[in-house]
Amino acid sequence: MTWGVPHIDLPPLPGIAALLAGHPQTAGPLNDLAEALLRGPSPLTPAERETIAASVSRGNECTFCAETHGAVARHLGGDGPVPDARLSALLAVAEKVRVDGRSVTGDDIARARAAGADDQAIHDTVLIAAAFCMFNRYVDGLATVAPDDPAAYEQIGKALAAEGYGG
Amino acid sequence: MTWGVPHIDLPPLPGIAALLAGHPQTAGPLNDLAEALLRGPSPLTPAERETIAASVSRGNECTFCAETHGAVARHLGGDGPVPDARLSALLAVAEKVRVDGRSVTGDDIARARAAGADDQAIHDTVLIAAAFCMFNRYVDGLATVAPDDPAAYEQIGKALAAEGYGG
Repeated sequence: MTWGVPHIDLPPLPGIAALLAGHPQTAGPLNDLAEALLRGPSPLTPAERETIAASVSRGNECTFCAETHGAVARHLGGDGPVPDARLSALLAVAEKVRVDGRSVTGDDIARARAAGADDQAIHDTVLIAAAFCMFNRYVDGLATVAPDDPAAYEQIGKALAAEGYGG
Repeated sequence: MTWGVPHIDLPPLPGIAALLAGHPQTAGPLNDLAEALLRGPSPLTPAERETIAASVSRGNECTFCAETHGAVARHLGGDGPVPDARLSALLAVAEKVRVDGRSVTGDDIARARAAGADDQAIHDTVLIAAAFCMFNRYVDGLATVAPDDPAAYEQIGKALAAEGYGG
């Protein structure tokens, strides 16, 4: 495990787990948000939503979040090599959001609609992408530690797939 | 008011107000997070925290958030032209987080500590900056409308300064 030194004093836990344990005042709303976004009612399955979260985290090169949500998505049956047309169009919207919210065009949205995405699916995609731009920066901006061992993410991913975010 | 056309069907309200009203399932955690971050216990005053929120939103060129939180900060006595040394060092950390969480260095943190910031102040700065990278993308990624009239932001800012975020 890469036990670098976080920028602030934190419990010896990986990634966002250290931040949630060390800063409980903000942990509640953050967990509630993750649960609502990734497990609450949505036209997108939890596997699709975790795939979007993993994709945005990979784009931001946030190792902890990318590996964790990739593992959650796989445990839920998603994040395979070939997304269907709707998810593919939504992943393209998510990537625009990741880079700059203003870069999402009417054509991007029209392509998602043509592939079967409704307003709620588009909303949820944009908010998941935006939220992982927060989570990624929270995790990396404070230099939390990311395990090197793929088995660690499999274990975290399996637990989150089964139990969700406790929101 | 620039009543452009949002990417999805939303109530006729400006900026994030349209999203919170139209999507109540995620509005709760988002409001709770804003209240905890910007009004909850912190070594940073609400005015300092709103100044960080406004600064990050200006960096992301999110007109609605930048104008709103700039107005809130002014109503709380902050966002003046010359931040003190501690806030100046924290604004520099926030700008690094805005661009890429991984770009925050030990030297950035050391400068903030030398200027009087403790672990909680650094934590809160990083999470506020990260959260506004989410809020800015949510607001702009769905093309919500931003008022042109400065008086609109003064009114919103005055209300949020007095009442907070209802978390």
